[in-house]
Amino acid sequence: MAEERRTDENVIYVGRKPPMSYVLAVVTQFNSGSEEVIIKARGRAISTAVDAAEIVRNRFVTDAKVKEIKISTESLTNEEGRTSNVSSIEICLTKKKGK
Amino acid sequence: MAEERRTDENVIYVGRKPPMSYVLAVVTQFNSGSEEVIIKARGRAISTAVDAAEIVRNRFVTDAKVKEIKISTESLTNEEGRTSNVSSIEICLTKKKGK
Repeated sequence: MAEERRTDENVIYVGRKPPMSYVLAVVTQFNSGSEEVIIKARGRAISTAVDAAEIVRNRFVTDAKVKEIKISTESLTNEEGRTSNVSSIEICLTKKKGK
Repeated sequence: MAEERRTDENVIYVGRKPPMSYVLAVVTQFNSGSEEVIIKARGRAISTAVDAAEIVRNRFVTDAKVKEIKISTESLTNEEGRTSNVSSIEICLTKKKGK
C-alpha cells in the first residue's frame, strides 16, 4: 500500500497563529496533489492543531480522513541549560485519490 | 478479546486544572484495577489532556500504551442560543494485565 512519505512539504507545523492559518496551509497542500498531510504541534498549540484538522475535515476537504494520531514527549533545553518536557502531537490526514 | 467498557468510572474529563490533577485521577483509576482509561477534553484543555496522558505513560504507569486517539467536533449552544463548534479529543490508555 501507500508508502509513508514524509517530505517536508506535507508537514504543517502549528504555532501561535489562529487555526485558519493552518487550515489554509493544509488545504493548499492537498490541492497541490498530496494524498497525505501531517499536522504537528507542541504544547499549547496542540489544541490549535486539533481545531485545524477538524475544520479541514468538516468544511474544506470532506473526503479527508484521520489516518493516525500520535502523541509524544520532547525534551527541550532552554538558554540556561535547563531541560523541560513538552508534549507533542502528529495528526496524519489522508485523502484517497479516485475513491 | 477485551470488550470496550465505557463505564463512567474509567473516563477522566480534563478541564482547567494543572495536568497533575488528571494524572493522579488516571493513575488511581489504573490502580483500582481498570485495564483501560479514557481521557477526554475539549477546546484549550486538549493540550492538558495530552500532557496528562504523556506524564502517566512516561512516569507513573510505564506499561500503559496509547490504544487509540480520536478527535471530533462538538456543537455547543450558549445562553444566547448561538452555537459554536469546539474540538474534542479522546485518548484511550490501556494496560494489559499479566503481560
